[in-house]
Amino acid sequence: MAVYTHLGAEDLAELIAHYDVGELVSAKGIAEGVSNSNWLIETTGGADGGNRFILTMYERRIDISELPFFLGLLDHLAANNCPVPRTIHDRSGSASREIDGKAVALIEYLPGVSVDHPTASQARAVGIALAEMHRASKSYGKTRANGLDISMSLHTLQSCGEDALSAIDDDLPDMIAVAQDLRDAWPWDLPRSICHTDLFPDNVLMLGSRVTGMIDFYFACTDALAYDLAVCLNAWAFEDGGRDALDFNFSKGAALIAGYESVRPLDPVEREALPILCRGAAVRFFLTRLIDWSSTPEGALVKPKNPLEYANRLAFHRKVATAEGYGA
Amino acid sequence: MAVYTHLGAEDLAELIAHYDVGELVSAKGIAEGVSNSNWLIETTGGADGGNRFILTMYERRIDISELPFFLGLLDHLAANNCPVPRTIHDRSGSASREIDGKAVALIEYLPGVSVDHPTASQARAVGIALAEMHRASKSYGKTRANGLDISMSLHTLQSCGEDALSAIDDDLPDMIAVAQDLRDAWPWDLPRSICHTDLFPDNVLMLGSRVTGMIDFYFACTDALAYDLAVCLNAWAFEDGGRDALDFNFSKGAALIAGYESVRPLDPVEREALPILCRGAAVRFFLTRLIDWSSTPEGALVKPKNPLEYANRLAFHRKVATAEGYGA
Repeated sequence: MAVYTHLGAEDLAELIAHYDVGELVSAKGIAEGVSNSNWLIETTGGADGGNRFILTMYERRIDISELPFFLGLLDHLAANNCPVPRTIHDRSGSASREIDGKAVALIEYLPGVSVDHPTASQARAVGIALAEMHRASKSYGKTRANGLDISMSLHTLQSCGEDALSAIDDDLPDMIAVAQDLRDAWPWDLPRSICHTDLFPDNVLMLGSRVTGMIDFYFACTDALAYDLAVCLNAWAFEDGGRDALDFNFSKGAALIAGYESVRPLDPVEREALPILCRGAAVRFFLTRLIDWSSTPEGALVKPKNPLEYANRLAFHRKVATAEGYGA
Repeated sequence: MAVYTHLGAEDLAELIAHYDVGELVSAKGIAEGVSNSNWLIETTGGADGGNRFILTMYERRIDISELPFFLGLLDHLAANNCPVPRTIHDRSGSASREIDGKAVALIEYLPGVSVDHPTASQARAVGIALAEMHRASKSYGKTRANGLDISMSLHTLQSCGEDALSAIDDDLPDMIAVAQDLRDAWPWDLPRSICHTDLFPDNVLMLGSRVTGMIDFYFACTDALAYDLAVCLNAWAFEDGGRDALDFNFSKGAALIAGYESVRPLDPVEREALPILCRGAAVRFFLTRLIDWSSTPEGALVKPKNPLEYANRLAFHRKVATAEGYGA
């Protein structure tokens, strides 16, 4: 949550002049995205329609050579009626430009707000939107490896070392051993296409129970479609993340899966794999939270999220044997 | 530049329901203001007109008992045709509400962007807007002390101690002695009314050379009107703030003063006092930057501004004997 780079009115007006969107009227740096700086831009409007846009500057984590994959995906999904912001192309047809050596993209603004406490009907709507996105992504034609799959997660956990792990909590299970077991048992042959892999409530814009936007596709990659559903089970179906308040909400889990299956019914192999996929997703979010947790200086204004919440989710998933355990 | 508090869609919708502005459509935390959290809010629109607002949550520095002064001032100035955002009152008529013990206010959204490198014609426009604001503020009827006047600045510099000061730079003049001399020579009897006292480019929204908004009045107080102009000379008429690139731009200084005087001609005593007022303003911004500089943890994402820029401005002001030295 930050704006890492200062862009003054002059810089912004110069940039906007390369697009057919009219003249700059307003620009507010917004506290969205952890890897990028973002501005909500208003213009006098242009041929492309619309007068509000999100300007994203790619600061960290994202390999600029991968931008065409991400921005092309937005355009592909938007063209296929998914609630995904399309990119605005400049007058030369390019989806991105450069300012001071950093890539920037102008992206459609979508209405909607991110919920903190999703209801079952909101979870159902997300399941539907996820499955529709999976259906549309099949014709995208580009692929990208998951840099945080279970093999990479295991590798990174091993690099962190036992010490970093045991420093968080005495009761933590041996996460390296857990990840090793998951990797060895991982079902690598499930149906695959492009997954979002980070579809948390803060990456979904909603109006009531309608999904108006799925955003922040910068972890999108080719992976098992059911893994994306497993991420959503972790993200949408647990109540509160406190250490002792672990609470899987079966109504929300069931609604999420039912919504998904109303568009794309799961294969029997996917249903069978759901618990291990959920465990793998919990390890992946435990890991990235651990890294954020360890790398945040003391006294920082933005408190990192506690990785233990995902150790707790993992403990729940390890008791689940079948998709029915999630309400399927 | 931060959003210190998380407000989810549910919190925001609950809040918005207390105002006659329609239903929540969008909410983006914005990176504006250092003492508050701010969100750009879009609604379906209501009887009050407009469908975009700034929601401000008062986090630090601001004494909540002073909110009626600040919010009343916005309403007074907006009603007197100053480009200042009015506050939206809730259904019970209140200009502020509370969420979790913190005061919040819903404030009109104004178009415009903040310039980094003002032109002389933009400086002139700011001079005009400042003088019109001074004219309108006379009928406000409330007063507030300047907590950062030269006496308070001296007191705070003394509390910081010689060590903190000499740690910044070996060549720094004795700021405590400088402030003491300024306090002893200060012209306390100049024409007074409500001053903004922090009208830097980032607190002014512009479209071209038109001022569309003056914002962030949370340092507003009763003080010498010419002091407010002195703050603006520091803020609008220097090129770049680098150590050795000190550069007062006489065209911009002259334009700022000429714009101001086209609405409210300065008294001879004010013209005479301008250099000492400019020195006092430079000490005040040196001081607050020093505090931010010293209190920012190493490795923080947002780099504080260098206090030395104001030591350099002070050095310039100490050579100026009359208002003509600023282009008046």
